[in-house]
Amino acid sequence: MARVVVDVMPKQEILDPQGQAVAGALPRLGFDGISEVRQGKRFELEVADSVDDETLAKIAETMLANPVIEDWTVRRVDS
Amino acid sequence: MARVVVDVMPKQEILDPQGQAVAGALPRLGFDGISEVRQGKRFELEVADSVDDETLAKIAETMLANPVIEDWTVRRVDS
Repeated sequence: MARVVVDVMPKQEILDPQGQAVAGALPRLGFDGISEVRQGKRFELEVADSVDDETLAKIAETMLANPVIEDWTVRRVDS
Repeated sequence: MARVVVDVMPKQEILDPQGQAVAGALPRLGFDGISEVRQGKRFELEVADSVDDETLAKIAETMLANPVIEDWTVRRVDS
């Protein structure tokens, strides 16, 4: 078994209202110095050793990310 | 400016219906060998150099994660 992490973030040119809401709330709560917040998703998968990188890339592109508005990375990590 | 990544994941003992939905859909779409999927959140913050680690830890705990049901990590990355 391997552990795979897929990080999915809104593309830089896409508005991110969730992140903007957090960024707007921080100064009101006394936290200064945070100029930008972007919010995305993180998936952790438990994957059989027989699953190859090409399959993982396809899963990320078709199931976990929306390629129109999101960028994503796939990486295997030590479990 | 520094870039800070905060990863927020549901605690291991907490049910994760979003992740389970993805895990259940994968075999139906022809992707086998994925035994577990957990879905969390990833935040990317642009932070002034004056913001110390203690402040970042507090922001993560109070604004980005729900400590009752989520675990989180804070790390500075090269921007």
